[in-house]
Amino acid sequence: MEQARGERARQAAEGAQDNVDGERLRRAIAQLAAFGGRDDGGVSRQTLTDIDLEARRHLVERAKALGCQVAIDDAANLFFRRPGEQDLPPVLTGSHVDTQPVGGKLDGAYGVLAGLELIEALNDARVRTLRPVEVVCWTNEEGSRFGPGCMGSSAFVDPACLPRYRTAVDGDKVSFGDALDRALDRMADVPRRAMKQPLSGFVELHIEQGPVLERAGVPLGVVTGIQSVRWYAVKATGVAAHAGTTPMEVRLDAMAACIEVAHRLQAEAARAADSGLRMTLGRWVVGPNSINTIPGEVEFTVDARCLDEQLLARFDAALRGLVAGHAWRGRMELQPLFARAPTRFPQAMLDVVAQACERTARMAGKPSPIPLTSGAFHDAMYLADHCPTAMIFVPSKNGLSHNAAEETAHEDLVLGARALAHAVAWLACA
Amino acid sequence: MEQARGERARQAAEGAQDNVDGERLRRAIAQLAAFGGRDDGGVSRQTLTDIDLEARRHLVERAKALGCQVAIDDAANLFFRRPGEQDLPPVLTGSHVDTQPVGGKLDGAYGVLAGLELIEALNDARVRTLRPVEVVCWTNEEGSRFGPGCMGSSAFVDPACLPRYRTAVDGDKVSFGDALDRALDRMADVPRRAMKQPLSGFVELHIEQGPVLERAGVPLGVVTGIQSVRWYAVKATGVAAHAGTTPMEVRLDAMAACIEVAHRLQAEAARAADSGLRMTLGRWVVGPNSINTIPGEVEFTVDARCLDEQLLARFDAALRGLVAGHAWRGRMELQPLFARAPTRFPQAMLDVVAQACERTARMAGKPSPIPLTSGAFHDAMYLADHCPTAMIFVPSKNGLSHNAAEETAHEDLVLGARALAHAVAWLACA
Repeated sequence: MEQARGERARQAAEGAQDNVDGERLRRAIAQLAAFGGRDDGGVSRQTLTDIDLEARRHLVERAKALGCQVAIDDAANLFFRRPGEQDLPPVLTGSHVDTQPVGGKLDGAYGVLAGLELIEALNDARVRTLRPVEVVCWTNEEGSRFGPGCMGSSAFVDPACLPRYRTAVDGDKVSFGDALDRALDRMADVPRRAMKQPLSGFVELHIEQGPVLERAGVPLGVVTGIQSVRWYAVKATGVAAHAGTTPMEVRLDAMAACIEVAHRLQAEAARAADSGLRMTLGRWVVGPNSINTIPGEVEFTVDARCLDEQLLARFDAALRGLVAGHAWRGRMELQPLFARAPTRFPQAMLDVVAQACERTARMAGKPSPIPLTSGAFHDAMYLADHCPTAMIFVPSKNGLSHNAAEETAHEDLVLGARALAHAVAWLACA
Repeated sequence: MEQARGERARQAAEGAQDNVDGERLRRAIAQLAAFGGRDDGGVSRQTLTDIDLEARRHLVERAKALGCQVAIDDAANLFFRRPGEQDLPPVLTGSHVDTQPVGGKLDGAYGVLAGLELIEALNDARVRTLRPVEVVCWTNEEGSRFGPGCMGSSAFVDPACLPRYRTAVDGDKVSFGDALDRALDRMADVPRRAMKQPLSGFVELHIEQGPVLERAGVPLGVVTGIQSVRWYAVKATGVAAHAGTTPMEVRLDAMAACIEVAHRLQAEAARAADSGLRMTLGRWVVGPNSINTIPGEVEFTVDARCLDEQLLARFDAALRGLVAGHAWRGRMELQPLFARAPTRFPQAMLDVVAQACERTARMAGKPSPIPLTSGAFHDAMYLADHCPTAMIFVPSKNGLSHNAAEETAHEDLVLGARALAHAVAWLACA
């Protein structure tokens, strides 16, 4: 029985993988990119805008044409279901189709379209899976119009979040709740379904958005987890004064104090870099910010990420020590802004994905997949709290995303879709 | 003859000094501060605005009432002349009445009003000076509405500057030339006179705008010179990228590079601080300035000042070396923005001012004056290229200026006016 099921899973996985059609995937990507397409090759399709709703309608029509059952939940997450032999919890794949104000064709959209390609490949291979296979299109992953990001996936996992999310407003003072209700009205023909439904597993295919795979010359990456992150603001308050008339020994120069602390932080981060710590001092606000005035107020942000939570805890302690122990007569404060622990995908899921990527690479004569961690957040980060979850990455040219220049070789996109098809079909049968 | 002239100078100087009327000075300061006065006690009177022109009209009327001949030049500098026995080059005093967008009652205005108080004191003492005494009100010292500052005084000394100044525009795209022509039209009843007229000397009384006198507990400072200054911009160009997905070893983080250079610059400045070097890194522009994006572009300014030009030249070489020798793979450039050599006032003028301050302090039972250098620019910096020049400082509370909280004890303002009266009357007779 065990062996028979394994053989069935292998056949389904290979049938799905081998029936992925690269040209069909290319057309699907181009068609979706037309919704919000820009002259520079980028895409502007922020969540729940008219363009986003039209793109979703396009996906609904395509899913229906493939024979899928279509459903929507209270967060406007869309689900396209290919029934299985038994009414078991489905295996879910997919991602999001919203973009940053200026994004590319692939961030999110690739994962959704590879999911629909998988459905079409299963149809072509006439595979019947034991469990249903579903493709999801999560709402507002980017968080650029309404913060925070990953609203759809996190509300799916914890529906108690939704009332809070509904109060978020965009730059035009439209609330997420109003935008959501409008979207649900427009999709009134699509049956509503409950949030937090049981799932057998979730596999998300995504572009890497970093340079690791490109630099390694490897087309497929097995994502072992998502880094933890901590965000802080360091604020120094001194006294703004005339740059010419104020002797050095009486100054309370907030910038000088921040440079000292930032320099020590950089030394701290450099010591931990080999262990995978990434630190960015990204946003600086200097007051009054004038060439001949000593800065009286400076605030800068610290973004620290690592897969090793202990290392991040040590960094946190070092940062607190630096800010509390500064030898400055002015005021310096540390404000923690956000923290999330690391996500580690379960070994059984990594094995399924590694096996799928291995076969895909071998059949294409490409180097074996490598394990890597995700530096960016993804919907999979929240799904990992709900069901066995995994991710597959394909390379990003120059590591770029959130940029019209976002690009992945089409050949690599096809390999990613084949690996996804193998992994999902396997999980749906094993 | 020599001795007789010395005795006459002494009598004129002491007569002027002793007839300075503190209450009259207080009223004059309050009256002028009403032009552009703010609820918070500050003054907003930017150059050649309607408020500034009304303030100038007020001064013209007062000068006429004191019996002065009033004249204006092509830069709208106003001159109030008390004739001398002979038509020799006059002794000039005064300052400016324009302010920063938010300034105080004293920066500039104090020097002009103390000049008019001196005229009134000479009248009261019935002193006839050998040379004429003039009070000047320079145009656009602050440079906040139209850059650069000290336009009026520098054009007086070098009229060839004026055509270039006329093209400067303010935030509303009004040119300095148009604002100037409008001011000259409004003052059409005031006789025009030539620029660059010969002067016997120039003495400017000003608030210190720094903390040195206050900290020393001394009401009068003999300004020995004005620091030289060099302004630069350091610009680093890297690559903006995702803070989460970009490994440390592939980053081109412009902020990290600038912190390294800024930190070394601070160490360099600290080594030279005992020799009087003052360094300020005042303006920072970071792009894209987002918490989770590695900064791709950072530009910061360097303001370095010192009375020792050689020390500043060594700092310049160190800065160039740091920027050229950075161990970073990105681009880093140094752009010199402005440089001015130090001003040293002639010893003979320092002696006249020191003698005036000594007597004033002694008669008031106050500590002797101390020598100090000016960290800020003043109109006297340009006049020093034209005639024997000197400056007198009075304390600034907490070293503040360019601020509504700018303040000097009235007692000290009166001492400054007495010292100015002594020095100018002396020069006008000696």
